[in-house]
Amino acid sequence: MDFALDARTEELRQRLLEFMDSHIYPAEPVAERQLAEADDPWSPPPVLEDLKAEARRRGLWNFFLPGEHGAGLTNLQYAPLAEITGRSPRLAPPALNCAAPDTGNMEVLAMFGNERQQKEWLEPLLRGEIRSAFAMTEPDVASSDATNIGTRIVRDGDQYVINGRKWYISGAMNPNCKILIVMGKTDPSAATHRQQSMVLVPRDTPGVNIRRGMHVFGYTDGDHGGHAEIEFTDVRVPAENLIAEEGSGFAIAQARLGPGRIHHCMRLIGMAERALELMCRRTLARTTFGRPIAEHGVVQDWIAEARVKIEQLRLLVLKTAWLMDTVGNQGAHTEIQAIKIATPRTVEWIIDKAIQAHGGGGVSQDFPLAELWAAARTLRLADGPDEVHKRSLARRELKQYLPPKGA
Amino acid sequence: MDFALDARTEELRQRLLEFMDSHIYPAEPVAERQLAEADDPWSPPPVLEDLKAEARRRGLWNFFLPGEHGAGLTNLQYAPLAEITGRSPRLAPPALNCAAPDTGNMEVLAMFGNERQQKEWLEPLLRGEIRSAFAMTEPDVASSDATNIGTRIVRDGDQYVINGRKWYISGAMNPNCKILIVMGKTDPSAATHRQQSMVLVPRDTPGVNIRRGMHVFGYTDGDHGGHAEIEFTDVRVPAENLIAEEGSGFAIAQARLGPGRIHHCMRLIGMAERALELMCRRTLARTTFGRPIAEHGVVQDWIAEARVKIEQLRLLVLKTAWLMDTVGNQGAHTEIQAIKIATPRTVEWIIDKAIQAHGGGGVSQDFPLAELWAAARTLRLADGPDEVHKRSLARRELKQYLPPKGA
Amino acid sequence: MDFALDARTEELRQRLLEFMDSHIYPAEPVAERQLAEADDPWSPPPVLEDLKAEARRRGLWNFFLPGEHGAGLTNLQYAPLAEITGRSPRLAPPALNCAAPDTGNMEVLAMFGNERQQKEWLEPLLRGEIRSAFAMTEPDVASSDATNIGTRIVRDGDQYVINGRKWYISGAMNPNCKILIVMGKTDPSAATHRQQSMVLVPRDTPGVNIRRGMHVFGYTDGDHGGHAEIEFTDVRVPAENLIAEEGSGFAIAQARLGPGRIHHCMRLIGMAERALELMCRRTLARTTFGRPIAEHGVVQDWIAEARVKIEQLRLLVLKTAWLMDTVGNQGAHTEIQAIKIATPRTVEWIIDKAIQAHGGGGVSQDFPLAELWAAARTLRLADGPDEVHKRSLARRELKQYLPPKGA
Amino acid sequence: MDFALDARTEELRQRLLEFMDSHIYPAEPVAERQLAEADDPWSPPPVLEDLKAEARRRGLWNFFLPGEHGAGLTNLQYAPLAEITGRSPRLAPPALNCAAPDTGNMEVLAMFGNERQQKEWLEPLLRGEIRSAFAMTEPDVASSDATNIGTRIVRDGDQYVINGRKWYISGAMNPNCKILIVMGKTDPSAATHRQQSMVLVPRDTPGVNIRRGMHVFGYTDGDHGGHAEIEFTDVRVPAENLIAEEGSGFAIAQARLGPGRIHHCMRLIGMAERALELMCRRTLARTTFGRPIAEHGVVQDWIAEARVKIEQLRLLVLKTAWLMDTVGNQGAHTEIQAIKIATPRTVEWIIDKAIQAHGGGGVSQDFPLAELWAAARTLRLADGPDEVHKRSLARRELKQYLPPKGA
Repeated sequence: MDFALDARTEELRQRLLEFMDSHIYPAEPVAERQLAEADDPWSPPPVLEDLKAEARRRGLWNFFLPGEHGAGLTNLQYAPLAEITGRSPRLAPPALNCAAPDTGNMEVLAMFGNERQQKEWLEPLLRGEIRSAFAMTEPDVASSDATNIGTRIVRDGDQYVINGRKWYISGAMNPNCKILIVMGKTDPSAATHRQQSMVLVPRDTPGVNIRRGMHVFGYTDGDHGGHAEIEFTDVRVPAENLIAEEGSGFAIAQARLGPGRIHHCMRLIGMAERALELMCRRTLARTTFGRPIAEHGVVQDWIAEARVKIEQLRLLVLKTAWLMDTVGNQGAHTEIQAIKIATPRTVEWIIDKAIQAHGGGGVSQDFPLAELWAAARTLRLADGPDEVHKRSLARRELKQYLPPKGA
Repeated sequence: MDFALDARTEELRQRLLEFMDSHIYPAEPVAERQLAEADDPWSPPPVLEDLKAEARRRGLWNFFLPGEHGAGLTNLQYAPLAEITGRSPRLAPPALNCAAPDTGNMEVLAMFGNERQQKEWLEPLLRGEIRSAFAMTEPDVASSDATNIGTRIVRDGDQYVINGRKWYISGAMNPNCKILIVMGKTDPSAATHRQQSMVLVPRDTPGVNIRRGMHVFGYTDGDHGGHAEIEFTDVRVPAENLIAEEGSGFAIAQARLGPGRIHHCMRLIGMAERALELMCRRTLARTTFGRPIAEHGVVQDWIAEARVKIEQLRLLVLKTAWLMDTVGNQGAHTEIQAIKIATPRTVEWIIDKAIQAHGGGGVSQDFPLAELWAAARTLRLADGPDEVHKRSLARRELKQYLPPKGA
Repeated sequence: MDFALDARTEELRQRLLEFMDSHIYPAEPVAERQLAEADDPWSPPPVLEDLKAEARRRGLWNFFLPGEHGAGLTNLQYAPLAEITGRSPRLAPPALNCAAPDTGNMEVLAMFGNERQQKEWLEPLLRGEIRSAFAMTEPDVASSDATNIGTRIVRDGDQYVINGRKWYISGAMNPNCKILIVMGKTDPSAATHRQQSMVLVPRDTPGVNIRRGMHVFGYTDGDHGGHAEIEFTDVRVPAENLIAEEGSGFAIAQARLGPGRIHHCMRLIGMAERALELMCRRTLARTTFGRPIAEHGVVQDWIAEARVKIEQLRLLVLKTAWLMDTVGNQGAHTEIQAIKIATPRTVEWIIDKAIQAHGGGGVSQDFPLAELWAAARTLRLADGPDEVHKRSLARRELKQYLPPKGA
Repeated sequence: MDFALDARTEELRQRLLEFMDSHIYPAEPVAERQLAEADDPWSPPPVLEDLKAEARRRGLWNFFLPGEHGAGLTNLQYAPLAEITGRSPRLAPPALNCAAPDTGNMEVLAMFGNERQQKEWLEPLLRGEIRSAFAMTEPDVASSDATNIGTRIVRDGDQYVINGRKWYISGAMNPNCKILIVMGKTDPSAATHRQQSMVLVPRDTPGVNIRRGMHVFGYTDGDHGGHAEIEFTDVRVPAENLIAEEGSGFAIAQARLGPGRIHHCMRLIGMAERALELMCRRTLARTTFGRPIAEHGVVQDWIAEARVKIEQLRLLVLKTAWLMDTVGNQGAHTEIQAIKIATPRTVEWIIDKAIQAHGGGGVSQDFPLAELWAAARTLRLADGPDEVHKRSLARRELKQYLPPKGA
């Protein structure tokens, strides 16, 4: 057992930290200004393209993707880097071409896409030229139970015809979003987990009706392309747009979610570090009742708690990454659930305290805290609410004490 | 001791509940639509004027104000009515002319305003013709310690000259907001709690620069007139605009805050009841893993907790109202602090669970939950953060065990 | 609505407070010493008989029992008195003949006992001459589901024959405990809630084997007669020892539990007040890092929280008592469950903080805190664990949103 | 970074797990019986000597001590082994000669003792022939601030004379406890952290008056030699019994506490695992409302939470051990505090849930849970209460944002 980072990770960390200082943090107010003055509320700020160019030039690119297509890092190597990008979550991840939902979509295409699909969609995504979206969640059912999905994908000759309604499809309102991966049922009579399939749907296909942007605690996340509600009405795509095979949708979704969840958790830890830093700085700078706020016992309690919680979370995320690298996503199932349960709520708690320490400023647009909070809190229900993960984890824990079947 | 409502309160409750059903709830989607189509983001939806007219016609008006100027209710009688309005907090309180910050401002004018001030500002406020704002919080200091306030109010002949910067001045961007009550220091050399004064500043006075609307977790609360940042630069008002006397600002603020805090708490309880109802209805209507969500044990736990918490909060708010009626705001000091500490955080917890039970819908604009949540959470730091109230309450608790001074 | 105590309650409160100061608190160290030197670990300290005599002389007696047999107080009148006795829970309740389980047993006999049963058992209990026990909980099943009960009570001619095993039968090891009320199944084939009956079993009946005293976090509660494990082997009692009728056991248990639960909650509030007082006194008296512990912000936070929580709990307990008086135990069902859920855990929290503020002393025998804590914590699972109450309360909450049956 | 155990640790783990199964768990009921029948309440059960002989024979001995005197394991290697012993904390640690307070005392003697002291006391301790105690905490002051210590150690010729009162001196009532390490002030006029010294005091020295055993939530921990209150009245020991030099007491205490705290945390994790296992087994075996308790959602929530919390704690403890091995105790300061804060309270929570799942059995002597709970809860205040550690940790966190001194 060894808790030291390897040399390559350490070297990339230093380079990334330097890039954060020299480019990302200075770009935050620039982006804020550009967004305030923008005509299109669903496009990223122009400064982002500069950041992408610079990051790519520096070799800070596609860290998230193991194997030949990406930077060749393991999950364990990527984790400390992803954490750093979480300190500026609106700019740093897309600047490094490491932003959801593209990351998950690239993974799907890299793992399950055929050559044509990779050429047409994966390659421009890897170059950061286009964006993509992942259309799974539906407004009409409790999507935390994936078997509830109602969208139909029906084979008609050499085409698939798609009908259904999706929402919270992140990034889909970005004009640069060119391709949607759509999950739906091809065979409702099949076994529960073989009913679903995924197809590639270009965003400009007729019948794809992007109706509105969903809000998240008042935020539209417009600079990330929002969270679209989309109606699919008799949408037709070539049959060759099917990913893998019919009935493989559930398995692909599972494969996609593991890395997606850990990436979120890595970044959340960076968000927590940012919030803690802001809390320390603010409470040292302001005074009540004759003392800096930082000297009040309750505030010190928050600061200590934040540190104690962050250290534990980070280690669990790192160990999970290591397990994914060494025994595979399936072998890391419990740990992936554990970090998905523990991280958003804990980081939410830390940000909440940082907000409280900032008074009115904490809930305002003058600090990133309220927006970070909304992101952390939403992750308690996105990708499966905590309660579903806990139920599943508990059942696995209990199973080891059950008599073997047939006994 | 008797926990039954008196006949007048019970009768008003029935009439108010009927009004909620017949007018307020049906107006919610109307208001939503009007706001989406409005040109001016800082004005209330037109339907509100209809609601006001109807409420006034029905005698559901100015409940909040004890004594001759208002409806003649005690705090204890008002509490169950205010709770009901909290179920639709964007429409019902203003419809009944019982919305903050006007309520507090009317109280100040009724208690401390002279005849001219009452005629000019209190009367149109009581008739619901104009709106008002209360300018106390400042961006540059920790305003939870009122002695930190930096705005200066300097006597110059028969005028006062005001310089300073305020923020989170709720309602001040509403074009119908005509008058600001501004708190500032007239005499920095006086005893700590005699330095501050309050003056009436018409919103259109030269030098009053309304700079922008502050956000609250992504919301602008535009239909309530937002939360303005205001710069006061050499703003001149007649000396007769002083409320009460120089040095009385801190005392007036304290007098204003007691009722203000309890009104917030009353409405918060209504918000909690609304959230609980939504949680029950939603979890009965949706299914995961073969059962309605409402049958999952963890969700039942939330529902039970919500009920158990609401019952306790309501009683403490009612007792506090009774104390204010019987021994005065000063005698209810501990209880006012106690409800200010307990209510926002508890209601926040309840709304959070209702959000979680709604999945993505919970954080969206399709349900009132996310916005209710932002309101509840913000009240943990508005009007003094919980921590300041707890510190003060604890000191009073400890004092009874100290040896008497001079002993 | 009125939150003032009535004159009779206020007068009794004053007399009781005086008795606490003059007799109960001074008896605490005496009892401690007597117990340390006692031969029989299962008997109360001799000083208790003096306290009983004095309390009876002062008319501080049988407060708990409404109606002719008792002091004629309502539940609402009894509540503030019971709270005071909770400040010294080992001595004050038995001194006033208001200690569990006798109170519940007297209620059962007063409500359901026939004349002979009342004469033989109720009268000496009311005079405080004997003690009693209530034998319901069983070690072999989850007794929180009362239908699980396994003890059999079988009619055999003019006798009942009892077989089964019970545990945590409080008070049963006290040599002065003369009578057991035993719950068991008379007809396992009847409808679920008509299977059980209750019979009176004199403690010295052959076949009643008191095996051992169960512990509660290391405490034996010997001075209360412990918590016995009892084996009933072919125990025979006359058929006339049946309480009420066959099949009425479940209903009687329910009737008994309502008052029992609220009495526990009343006393718990007194325990919380005692703990808070001890916390204040201790933290004012000791110094760390150059300041009295009471000046550290975290400790003030605990003190404020304790006060805020206690005020809410007390009001809910009082309202519950009022409901029991005005609409009956059945009408107060939700509130009885609510206080049973809220009170033990909250008081546990408060005592825990008082312990922490005392350092090593807090867990020791030198302060009552650790023992109070064990009592509070155990009440989270006694008389039905919190989780069962929450489940039941939630189902009732949800029911109002269900379509009416047959609709 | 690598999360796999090394081969030696893995091999020792297997051997230790086997020993637990073959000897420790079977000895638990034996010990229980022996203790119930014992004459001397302050001696360990005889079976412990058998276990020690067997453990030593198997080479499962003195794992805790790095370096030549012990088994030569690093902290990181010891941690997973200590965790396993925590599953049976009354028997396994002493069976392996790895029980507090001997471990800390052996460390002190190994690091700071001179040759004579090592020969006389360390060697028999290492062989498990005698026990020892560490006398630091005092009843009359808040010992969490070590500068408060009042015991005096005064040089008088070639002797030291000790006067003072100590309590919670664990193990000191065990007749086999032969030596006390006593902390006191040799020079109250020295700098704050140079006032204290430590001396070795044989337990049978005249003037050492062992007054009583302190309780811990009703437990006396008699089989561990209890927690003595000791009065030192003119106790004289040779000057050569001084450990290291005068004024080094505070530094030695700090050196001793680091390993002591991590050992506690390691074992606490084993306690949590034991509690979780018991919770799973019990809830699978019992039924309420027609289903095994384990199928109720709230119970599954507890189980999942327990697993999620344990995984995080374990990693933080392991990383702390690794830091102690690689950068020293001083470099691991923050992490040692973090585990001291996080572990007891979290394990307390887990055990509490296991207790709740056991109903009455949970608080009884029939399961180890209540006693495990008392141990975990007490560690929230032993060796410095959580609050003191949090205050210190927060100050270090804040320091990095302060301008450098002199700037």
